[in-house]
Amino acid sequence: MKKKTTNTPSTFHEEGRVARRRARVRADLLAAARQVFIQRGYQEATISEIIQIADVAMGTFYLHFRDKEELLLALAEEGLQLLREQIHTALTAHPDQPLIPLIIRTLLHAAYQERELFLLLCAGESHLLAQTRTHQAQQGLAAHFIPPLRAAKERGELKESDPVLLAHLLGGMLVRAITWWFDQDEPGPDAMADQVLGMLAHGLPSSLLTNNDAPTS
Amino acid sequence: MKKKTTNTPSTFHEEGRVARRRARVRADLLAAARQVFIQRGYQEATISEIIQIADVAMGTFYLHFRDKEELLLALAEEGLQLLREQIHTALTAHPDQPLIPLIIRTLLHAAYQERELFLLLCAGESHLLAQTRTHQAQQGLAAHFIPPLRAAKERGELKESDPVLLAHLLGGMLVRAITWWFDQDEPGPDAMADQVLGMLAHGLPSSLLTNNDAPTS
Repeated sequence: MKKKTTNTPSTFHEEGRVARRRARVRADLLAAARQVFIQRGYQEATISEIIQIADVAMGTFYLHFRDKEELLLALAEEGLQLLREQIHTALTAHPDQPLIPLIIRTLLHAAYQERELFLLLCAGESHLLAQTRTHQAQQGLAAHFIPPLRAAKERGELKESDPVLLAHLLGGMLVRAITWWFDQDEPGPDAMADQVLGMLAHGLPSSLLTNNDAPTS
Repeated sequence: MKKKTTNTPSTFHEEGRVARRRARVRADLLAAARQVFIQRGYQEATISEIIQIADVAMGTFYLHFRDKEELLLALAEEGLQLLREQIHTALTAHPDQPLIPLIIRTLLHAAYQERELFLLLCAGESHLLAQTRTHQAQQGLAAHFIPPLRAAKERGELKESDPVLLAHLLGGMLVRAITWWFDQDEPGPDAMADQVLGMLAHGLPSSLLTNNDAPTS
């Protein structure tokens, strides 16, 4: 198909309309795929059912996505992008709030909303590439925690702790908080954030970590 | 093949020898598979190379394992069994020590020794069933922490924290501590345990969690 080189006002309008329709069809396919993947699981989902729900012809599907796997990766990217945007928005809206609790609350809220999608991505039956993307996202999450932890280290508040390692341990806790929702809906995101932040504020009771009768190391 | 029903002393000895040889061949195949999987990655590993290193005929291979996947699952089971045994041994040897630090130190030591195997199992390129097994093992790990956390809760030491959820958050931290070694060897298991236990003992500095100027809700 040759690209037009002359752009009269009417072809401009037409190109805008084509682009808008293309974007709408893509969004319809992603919404249908999400629904079918969540209902049937990734392995059992078929492109036929997805295009039927999206009301799109098979030929049109292949203008947008190469295969089922590319559809899943696009959904993963969409979900992760939503998390990133919500965190960015929260940080911009509350520049005076302590960073770590703000990120934890925002992340848990967004992940709870999207938990069916994340279940799909992490459940083991989705494609490995999507899992790799999720793993990279975990790294990105930990990166948010490094600057405030480094600052605390410089103020002498972290003792022997390595701020980078600590950021990743914190990320591991949060990933587990999110995967917790794969098996149950309770507690919701606010109560979950309270649990995580309570643990971060107090640690575990010393009775669980030290032995009064004999030294432990 | 008909099973013999008469057991004279000599067939007893022979059966023992056959069983021993069978176990040895199986162990050789597992050791060779571990080596080839770690060197080449699971996808690139071939049964041909594994039987060559194990010095076993192809026909013999199939007496022991159906395919490459079953080999990987057996390796996963072996690695997880080793972790369980080491934790059990440590608990038996030190009944007077606080449970949580003891399990954390033992787990991190065993996982560090076996980190190449665990990398293989978690790296995303291994088969999904092996990943499912690893996920179940994480659940088993958290189960160790529930009784001491419940006891602390009953003593009124855990405030609002849910002991079961806390056990799983702790498990998430430890999984991240182990996957940390996929990218780097440092810190070793003792220093890693110190980092985790330091975090559990003190939590994060309050400057990172609370805002003195405005309440954070």
